[in-house]
Amino acid sequence: MEIYFDNSATTRCYTEVKDLVSRLMTEDFGNPSAMHQKGVEAERYMKEAAASIAGILKAKPEEILFTSGGTESDNLALIGTALALRRRGKHIIISQTEHAAVREPAEFLKKEGFEVSLLPVDAEGVVRMDVLSEMLRPDTILVSVMYVNNETGTVMPVREIAGLVHEKSPLAYFHTDAVQAFGKYRICPSREGIDLLSVSSHKLHGPKGAGFLYIRKGVRLQPLILGGGQQNGMRSGTDNVPGAAGMALASVMVYEHLEDNNKKLYGLKKRLQEGLSDLEGITLNGMPLEKAAPHIMSITFDGIRSEVLLHSLEDRGIYVSAGSACSSHKRKPSATLSAMGLPGAALESTIRVSFSDENTEEEVDSFVKTVHEIVPMLRRYARK
Amino acid sequence: MEIYFDNSATTRCYTEVKDLVSRLMTEDFGNPSAMHQKGVEAERYMKEAAASIAGILKAKPEEILFTSGGTESDNLALIGTALALRRRGKHIIISQTEHAAVREPAEFLKKEGFEVSLLPVDAEGVVRMDVLSEMLRPDTILVSVMYVNNETGTVMPVREIAGLVHEKSPLAYFHTDAVQAFGKYRICPSREGIDLLSVSSHKLHGPKGAGFLYIRKGVRLQPLILGGGQQNGMRSGTDNVPGAAGMALASVMVYEHLEDNNKKLYGLKKRLQEGLSDLEGITLNGMPLEKAAPHIMSITFDGIRSEVLLHSLEDRGIYVSAGSACSSHKRKPSATLSAMGLPGAALESTIRVSFSDENTEEEVDSFVKTVHEIVPMLRRYARK
Repeated sequence: MEIYFDNSATTRCYTEVKDLVSRLMTEDFGNPSAMHQKGVEAERYMKEAAASIAGILKAKPEEILFTSGGTESDNLALIGTALALRRRGKHIIISQTEHAAVREPAEFLKKEGFEVSLLPVDAEGVVRMDVLSEMLRPDTILVSVMYVNNETGTVMPVREIAGLVHEKSPLAYFHTDAVQAFGKYRICPSREGIDLLSVSSHKLHGPKGAGFLYIRKGVRLQPLILGGGQQNGMRSGTDNVPGAAGMALASVMVYEHLEDNNKKLYGLKKRLQEGLSDLEGITLNGMPLEKAAPHIMSITFDGIRSEVLLHSLEDRGIYVSAGSACSSHKRKPSATLSAMGLPGAALESTIRVSFSDENTEEEVDSFVKTVHEIVPMLRRYARK
Repeated sequence: MEIYFDNSATTRCYTEVKDLVSRLMTEDFGNPSAMHQKGVEAERYMKEAAASIAGILKAKPEEILFTSGGTESDNLALIGTALALRRRGKHIIISQTEHAAVREPAEFLKKEGFEVSLLPVDAEGVVRMDVLSEMLRPDTILVSVMYVNNETGTVMPVREIAGLVHEKSPLAYFHTDAVQAFGKYRICPSREGIDLLSVSSHKLHGPKGAGFLYIRKGVRLQPLILGGGQQNGMRSGTDNVPGAAGMALASVMVYEHLEDNNKKLYGLKKRLQEGLSDLEGITLNGMPLEKAAPHIMSITFDGIRSEVLLHSLEDRGIYVSAGSACSSHKRKPSATLSAMGLPGAALESTIRVSFSDENTEEEVDSFVKTVHEIVPMLRRYARK
């Protein structure tokens, strides 16, 4: 049996999504920029995809920009706004626990002459509102704080953050990387004060190589990929019709069952927590289970290196992650856990378990049973 | 019956490619950055894709960088090298007939303080080598000339261009947009003096949303999309495994039958040319048929507006393009045809017919028959 508990790294495509993508690759395969019927048909898929996603966000279809994924969305949100607003100001704030797709563009902007402030988090991984309040300046042009942390499932108080940003820095845009939040929360950017919001398709049973950036109407942004002028010039290149349509279908499917899905996911988390409660030296990091996002658990196993645990689980067909799997193989101590104040030893002994709606209670039971078998063994081994 | 003669805009995915992409979406769907077996499997697909493509180009797998498509590849080639080399020099040369995916990044670089020279072409659409020779300077850092023109099928003397560039501007890189050439020619970048080469997957029966940039070992380039450090930090974001693997399979399939395919394509072109030879007021633009690329024909129909002809053909189930379909709906007079010296009236009366190996002689015959029916009619109409 294979138990896939690494859904925050990537998910299986829904079968319905796969079928749609297949059809768009071999039957309705036109180029939306073509003027004939096959192009018009393809364009209709793009428009419907934008309308579906906009519907979920209570946004306008023209506020949805299709990209190649969450990383491109984050890059565009940061670099695109910074270049567009550089005459307004040069101050940017990001949280200490951002994904590399936000952190690295911020580093790049620093080299280009922007000033980047790192907003600290508390022990649960939540940004310090008091510090944010002090950091915000009249020349702050962008604040980027993720909606749900990808390593711990910590949920940020996005609405409060956005409110504070717009109050104290009226020139600034508020961007949120919602890669781990979209598909788990009903998000309404206009009501929550979000100007820019990044999403990745393959985190919610859509195809890889697709994502979108919500751009509130009126937000100024310099495009990063230039050419034929597709998507109103904001992102050139032949539209990835199968990707966009597949992502939209996956999104619609997820949101149709959102409350049921989340109930199920919280149930799985609770079951796993209870299953491990009799074991010593195990800590759940971040927010209390029911306050955190429904699908992510960060678990520290004292005295066991995370890679060792990961590979022992893998030998038994269980797939989890050591930290976030989104950074290519780099085994650096997690910046997120470190910012939350976890001691050095814990940083090396933490795994991430992440569920999807396709996981089952039986799988959790099997995981719990396996952990009970291998953890004492690995600890004995570690002490030798 | 549907006759699809717009293969330079996009192609149907091969069924085998669709099957592979489907499997990678629902079965082997891992994230290559994950440390467990499912990640390792996914990474193997990426490595095999790079090895397959490198094999075709007689290059090294590490010289293949996967992107979201031809436009991103072109953007990275231009902006990435310009930013990396800005201390060496600021002079860039592109041909007058480049795709917007090269032209627009060059425009952007102009605003960033680079100097861009436009290399003119002759009546066949071939760059003027004498002018290039005069343009090349010690501070030239990049020359970009496409391999095959997307509107006319004109083939550029890439090896000679690259030779001249490297001789007269030793600091300069030579980039070629090979979006319409890969899959039609056996290209060996190292032997042809090509430093950077852009390819798009969906032009050769691969999935949309995928492409690659060949980057000769040693070439310096600043990445455009930053984050988790995938692909040696040159292009962050979760690898689009289905896209890359699908593109590699399509490439292998195309190159397995390259000579047969091309023979067939030239046969179709010849058949079409002969079929129209008794009609008055029809001109084939660009190089003579057998010198040009095997799949593209640019045909001017005197006295008929290209949109009118396009839609009349469309009514009969035949899909062609008015100019290049890659630029989103913009009906501007073609810069390529204009640079070749076509008179204004011809610019408005030209269509592009582009074949793939899936087209047949029967389709060409049907096209020829239809043109004989509608052209006299449309001309009568136009004269009223």
